[in-house]
Amino acid sequence: MKFCSNCGAQVARRVPPGDALPRWVCDACGIVHYENPRMVLGTIPEHEGKVLLCRRAIEPRYGYWTLPAGFMENDETTAQAAVRETAEEAGARIELGPAFSMISVPRANQVHIFYRARLLDLDFKPGEETLEIALVEESGIPWPEIAFRTVATTLRRWFEDRAKGQFGFHAGEINS
Amino acid sequence: MKFCSNCGAQVARRVPPGDALPRWVCDACGIVHYENPRMVLGTIPEHEGKVLLCRRAIEPRYGYWTLPAGFMENDETTAQAAVRETAEEAGARIELGPAFSMISVPRANQVHIFYRARLLDLDFKPGEETLEIALVEESGIPWPEIAFRTVATTLRRWFEDRAKGQFGFHAGEINS
Repeated sequence: MKFCSNCGAQVARRVPPGDALPRWVCDACGIVHYENPRMVLGTIPEHEGKVLLCRRAIEPRYGYWTLPAGFMENDETTAQAAVRETAEEAGARIELGPAFSMISVPRANQVHIFYRARLLDLDFKPGEETLEIALVEESGIPWPEIAFRTVATTLRRWFEDRAKGQFGFHAGEINS
Repeated sequence: MKFCSNCGAQVARRVPPGDALPRWVCDACGIVHYENPRMVLGTIPEHEGKVLLCRRAIEPRYGYWTLPAGFMENDETTAQAAVRETAEEAGARIELGPAFSMISVPRANQVHIFYRARLLDLDFKPGEETLEIALVEESGIPWPEIAFRTVATTLRRWFEDRAKGQFGFHAGEINS
């Protein structure tokens, strides 16, 4: 059972006139409540060839390693969200580079976007959602302990592009 | 006044424990209702050097010209959303190319993303939200009648890149 955020009445799931998909519709006040995917923004912070990884202090994937990232908020840009999440999760100050990857995860109704970044100093420290932080070389990436496939894919593309000497932009999706 | 979509009780705007920003919080059932930006997905459909534009049959910007685009839905990827919107607004079948632009519009809590695309045939026809469709060369773009600045920026970058003979990926923002 769900309720209308506008008037508090119970809402029903049906296809509104002129629409193609079922929505939560309020018969009391007439509002259609659309649901849309959320964006997760993060960075690949680099220092002398090593990449900053965070070990998660929260579920899902408690104890697994990830890049600093989190949900984009209202009133900010994708770039601001990437910088904010890097500060919140890793206490890290960065110079933001170009957007690097954009990976849809339709199963979770999310799109994960990562920017390249350069650490401005080594004064990082774990935020509330992070157990510990490590700067790791390619050979030290704990692949089986990476928290999310969007992060693993982003890291693989990043090391491939670095080996080529040219960084591109990588759009993709994870469908299982 | 707003209400909880989970239990129907009235919600209050305040900063939850451990958070930094005010949210809609339900004291009855304890749920925090986060609000996040929405993604608008579209394409730049090209045919023999001309670009497909749609004249809007809906507000905002009724009568102005735009690229086919619209809100990304749950359960789809960014690429699927771009293809779907191109079919819905222009009845156009396309071969989707690479992602081309990603422009944040924090004032509207939106991020607009456009993919390059090639028209597969000329059997396009206006959808319900479109008055008419035109295939236009660079010299024919009605710049003062382009509906949105994200669309104008995307078209300018597209023609610049085409002149250079190399298409890139362009991330940016519109702040006014």
